[in-house]
Amino acid sequence: MMSSLKHVNPTVKGIKESAHSVLQSLAAHVTQEIAQGVQKPFKGVIDINSGDPHKAGMKPISFVRQVLAVCLHPELLGNKTLPLDVRLRAQRLLEVCEGGSVGSYTDSSGIPHIRQSIADFIIRRDVGVPSYANNVFISAGSQKGLMVILKLLASGEGDTQTGVLTPMPCPHTLPTLLDDAGMTLVPYQLMEDQGWAVDLSELHRALKCGRGHCNPRAIYISNPGNPTGHVQDWKSIEEVIRFAAAERLLLMVDEVYQDSVYGQGKEFLSYKRVLFEMGKEYSETVELVSFHSLSSACMGECGLRAGYMELVNMDPEVMYFVDTMLCTDISTPVTGQLALDLMVKPPKPGDHSYDTYTQEILLIRATLSQNAQRAHEFLNDLPGMSSQPAMGGIYLYSRLHLPSDIIQKAKIVEVEADVLYCQMLLEEEGVFLGAGCQNGETTGNHYLRLCILVPTDTLEKVLAQLASFHLRLIDKHPPTDR
Amino acid sequence: MMSSLKHVNPTVKGIKESAHSVLQSLAAHVTQEIAQGVQKPFKGVIDINSGDPHKAGMKPISFVRQVLAVCLHPELLGNKTLPLDVRLRAQRLLEVCEGGSVGSYTDSSGIPHIRQSIADFIIRRDVGVPSYANNVFISAGSQKGLMVILKLLASGEGDTQTGVLTPMPCPHTLPTLLDDAGMTLVPYQLMEDQGWAVDLSELHRALKCGRGHCNPRAIYISNPGNPTGHVQDWKSIEEVIRFAAAERLLLMVDEVYQDSVYGQGKEFLSYKRVLFEMGKEYSETVELVSFHSLSSACMGECGLRAGYMELVNMDPEVMYFVDTMLCTDISTPVTGQLALDLMVKPPKPGDHSYDTYTQEILLIRATLSQNAQRAHEFLNDLPGMSSQPAMGGIYLYSRLHLPSDIIQKAKIVEVEADVLYCQMLLEEEGVFLGAGCQNGETTGNHYLRLCILVPTDTLEKVLAQLASFHLRLIDKHPPTDR
Repeated sequence: MMSSLKHVNPTVKGIKESAHSVLQSLAAHVTQEIAQGVQKPFKGVIDINSGDPHKAGMKPISFVRQVLAVCLHPELLGNKTLPLDVRLRAQRLLEVCEGGSVGSYTDSSGIPHIRQSIADFIIRRDVGVPSYANNVFISAGSQKGLMVILKLLASGEGDTQTGVLTPMPCPHTLPTLLDDAGMTLVPYQLMEDQGWAVDLSELHRALKCGRGHCNPRAIYISNPGNPTGHVQDWKSIEEVIRFAAAERLLLMVDEVYQDSVYGQGKEFLSYKRVLFEMGKEYSETVELVSFHSLSSACMGECGLRAGYMELVNMDPEVMYFVDTMLCTDISTPVTGQLALDLMVKPPKPGDHSYDTYTQEILLIRATLSQNAQRAHEFLNDLPGMSSQPAMGGIYLYSRLHLPSDIIQKAKIVEVEADVLYCQMLLEEEGVFLGAGCQNGETTGNHYLRLCILVPTDTLEKVLAQLASFHLRLIDKHPPTDR
Repeated sequence: MMSSLKHVNPTVKGIKESAHSVLQSLAAHVTQEIAQGVQKPFKGVIDINSGDPHKAGMKPISFVRQVLAVCLHPELLGNKTLPLDVRLRAQRLLEVCEGGSVGSYTDSSGIPHIRQSIADFIIRRDVGVPSYANNVFISAGSQKGLMVILKLLASGEGDTQTGVLTPMPCPHTLPTLLDDAGMTLVPYQLMEDQGWAVDLSELHRALKCGRGHCNPRAIYISNPGNPTGHVQDWKSIEEVIRFAAAERLLLMVDEVYQDSVYGQGKEFLSYKRVLFEMGKEYSETVELVSFHSLSSACMGECGLRAGYMELVNMDPEVMYFVDTMLCTDISTPVTGQLALDLMVKPPKPGDHSYDTYTQEILLIRATLSQNAQRAHEFLNDLPGMSSQPAMGGIYLYSRLHLPSDIIQKAKIVEVEADVLYCQMLLEEEGVFLGAGCQNGETTGNHYLRLCILVPTDTLEKVLAQLASFHLRLIDKHPPTDR
């Protein structure tokens, strides 16, 4: 029987309540209190701790939703109030669904037509670098793809356990994934004073250190950076690739925010594109996995659950196992797969939906870019806060110089000081931000994480409430950094 | 690096190519040949080896698709060509999505409103037996829910490894799942001559045998039976519950075909309902998990990926781990969750969509029932075939008496004889059926598995081609059973 917990799978039993879930539970509790009529100085919790754009009030892309609606209810093919290109596209997508229905299973690696659309998109994006549908694997979100790769890499215990070089700070979901997969996190520090750039000597230091206690076999990169907002340039990417090649590390590149680079003079460059300009010595040998997702900035379709990964220079037998492991999911939700096709193959100039689509995308990008600048300037004006400007991605990551008695109090109640700060902010103002310790911070510094992919008025509200809380706190406790 | 397979996770490397995937690959190969213009005596592969109703040509339920279309594209709320109850329902469902969008994440265990709808459905179904939303967990398909439970149960190695009493034949996906979870399959034979009934003395024998080499902690039941078509009566269910209670086994009940019982005088009875009529001694102690799915017979929405499980008498700490493990999926696809709500809360008498909905459901049930009878009678008329009639579910499972030289040939080419039969059928007629060995058959008998949830004309085509192939085979090889 399962009733006695001593019989629950010991691996499962080891799962600890993370700082993330502590704050999540508190947010749920506060929301419930409000629903039950408890009086608060705010009407509800504003959650910008992680990226969930539609929840925050961002609008979906009309073209995407129109096509999906027709695919679900094909009678709408005859509805002339819907643009012609919407109906033609839906018809085409229904043709690639088995039995013409989104209700059928698909191949475990995704609908072949859509894997091809993705490969075509990658070729255009990378200015002609070849890409093949067989190397593209669709999964129920990019995290699911990453889990498959991690499971393939995992082996050994103790000194022989697979290690992954992991940026600090890193995406807040990553440490748990590595832990679940039975892998050692080998931290490399990003350079805050250089806008969170990757530093080559730090990579060497981290690798050497990691080799002392595990078997590092991969390096994780987030570009545009989650949560740092850093965007790597050609030289930096080339350095990382040379490092990975020399040290025989698999490159795992989270490029899910490739559609949202807004920093002056910055542009998104894929690792694959740079790799293929480095000559055959690299382009035919370095193993690379790149992740992208429907939850990306412009689409923000988190609830539809789909993403993909492209595998480069991977052994065909490894590809076979990737396919086999995706089989346990049976198939990725079909509505999500269709939305991926729409993401990588948007309306073209001349199509009926082109203007609307373009306006909607531009609006999202403008909101993101303005929010990034506004939040950066606003926070830097507050005493005890200093952030690097975000150049891309959907987060602002701000240093927090906490009063020493807050740090003392945190020690007493046995939480990280930045978590304590976020708890107080949540309780007093109903604003839910992320704490740096969730992003793997172990330097002793404290940080806040804000998702900036929200409507402008929401951001203003958050900033005002954050400032009000922060100034009260500073007022009560003179600011000193340890 | 991963390029050398010796470094791939040894657990993953152990995954073998199953009989199922051998046939799947052959079907894909034949389909590809046809696409490339290779001449065949058939136009394409008809795949009725497993349940994928829409692929086979069954129609979705209009009400479900209409509501989902509006949820995806809320501008359709103003479209008066859609029934009023469709638009009202879509509006209500959008209210329970965060930010009013299907693009937002949900709680990892599912949208609370929909968990409540499911609990309400279970109460109505079980004539008043209480059900609570907190005990209902939504996942991306019932198999995903089962995987979570298996992972919780898994522990030990060798003699102490968790064992699961498993019916023979069992759903063709189950043996791989148990294997992946690191559990021992403890077979109990269903009684073919009693229409594949569960036999109590066989359960005792199997358990005793299992205790010799593992630690049996659960029993898996499929009712209505996959692939047997058996429907358990009250007495049989009560017997199994008493057995599980006495032996302290967790009951894992696959009830995904609860909406499709058509055998004369048969009705679906849930294990939970029977349990709660057996008095507190049982209803407050026996641990039970029941699975249901959007892929069920009437909906057939496999591609939307959603299902649920209800946990009864489970320790609250176990529930906590279920929730935690569902977290790794982040959230179940929202379109699937909404469709679950529609499945468990269909239009009521008086609603605009009620008549259409009812007609569509009745048509599906009638097709299924007629197909079951037709296929049973047809196959029983063929020499060397004999099937028990299906009383429910979506499969017909037919005994196949193979000529001895086919059995000999199978030994030479090292495949199971029923797989060889299916391979030949696939190559010669383009008809893709399932082989009994995929359902765990180890008795040495051979079986065929047909999904009968297909349009009537498809079934007729399949039966004619199967008969033609079978009679040719029998003609060449005089029928003798081993």
